[in-house]
Amino acid sequence: EIAEQVIAFFQKKTLLGKKVLITAGPTFEAIDPVRGITNHSSGKMGFAIARAAVEAGAQVQLIAGPCDLATPLEATGKIARTNVTSAKEMHLAVLNDADYDIFFAVAAVADWGIAKPSKEKIKRQGKDAPSIEFIANPDILLDVAKTVKNKGGKPHPYCVGFAAESTDLEAHAAEKRQRKGIPMVVGNIGHETFGSDLNQLLVVDENGSKKIAKAEKLQLARQLIALVAKKI
Amino acid sequence: EIAEQVIAFFQKKTLLGKKVLITAGPTFEAIDPVRGITNHSSGKMGFAIARAAVEAGAQVQLIAGPCDLATPLEATGKIARTNVTSAKEMHLAVLNDADYDIFFAVAAVADWGIAKPSKEKIKRQGKDAPSIEFIANPDILLDVAKTVKNKGGKPHPYCVGFAAESTDLEAHAAEKRQRKGIPMVVGNIGHETFGSDLNQLLVVDENGSKKIAKAEKLQLARQLIALVAKKI
Repeated sequence: EIAEQVIAFFQKKTLLGKKVLITAGPTFEAIDPVRGITNHSSGKMGFAIARAAVEAGAQVQLIAGPCDLATPLEATGKIARTNVTSAKEMHLAVLNDADYDIFFAVAAVADWGIAKPSKEKIKRQGKDAPSIEFIANPDILLDVAKTVKNKGGKPHPYCVGFAAESTDLEAHAAEKRQRKGIPMVVGNIGHETFGSDLNQLLVVDENGSKKIAKAEKLQLARQLIALVAKKI
Repeated sequence: EIAEQVIAFFQKKTLLGKKVLITAGPTFEAIDPVRGITNHSSGKMGFAIARAAVEAGAQVQLIAGPCDLATPLEATGKIARTNVTSAKEMHLAVLNDADYDIFFAVAAVADWGIAKPSKEKIKRQGKDAPSIEFIANPDILLDVAKTVKNKGGKPHPYCVGFAAESTDLEAHAAEKRQRKGIPMVVGNIGHETFGSDLNQLLVVDENGSKKIAKAEKLQLARQLIALVAKKI
């Protein structure tokens, strides 16, 4: 932790005085008291971006779905963490925040929740599978994008979305950027990198796309922070 | 690890020469490459039983669903671990094993799997929620119970099931014991103890039920191993 703080101290302070909001990890949509739908996100990429943002001098608000990761650089006092479980809770926590300069929507948020979670464990009795009714979850990134204002010719907050696709990453990332109305989407090949410390990013912005070569997630996060710092 | 081995050395060798098969952790049923259905099991109770069994002198085969726990007492060479993801894989791994003296079915196995997991990530486009078709998973404990033979008047292997219910624990545990045709079911109040190091057990066997008071999972596991050792 002391070594980490020394390393952090020597990073470029490209986000000094800025406030950064980051979502990270998976969400968990309860089916009953013991079961639920989740996804493979480990939270590592979001937590790496949180660390890189603190290193760059920012004040960070980290909103984390269920994952076992420690809050990075906690001793600096420059990072606050809120733990949530479902997409609805994450939406509430994000919309509750205000006046930040950058929003990184890194969490792998469930698109659908369970309409009526059972209060008791659904039992196996009989061979009939349960019928589960889904409802669309709120779209966190879209709702934040709607709050964006123009501040000196630049979007405020600057929103960065993430795309984890199994195919056609570049097309999907560009399409997501248009659909959400945000300036930047970062793509990573999800099922190859979930849980790994390595990753490879494709940054899609108004200038087109740019690869950040395979590296440790913290290295990628630092490069991404440097890129975004130039945008605001 | 050395301290743990010394502690293990001084435990009663009630299972010397016995072979114990244990399932632990949750299972994960893939919906698509990034999403799936899982449950709140941390694997801690199953791993504690594995540790207590090695301490008691047994040779342990641990079949673990996705969880981040280290294999206990690995350096003793008395424990082998197989990692699986889905209930089907766990079923295969368990049925692949043979000639063990005790089976602890501790894993929280998904009752239903996904009929046709999507090879590509299901996209959010549109507001229609996906329709997911479930299929019943194989019943691991029931299939092992069918292989039980009478050996000197005692069931071989001796099967111990686990019940995690949110209500009426004793009735549910007793009913499960009858339905699966096994001599012992251990109940724990699931949603209160998932992920915790503490637990409280209710042991239901042919003599009725017996509480093991709230304690660390390893303490409970040692008491449970002592109880089961008397049965075989």
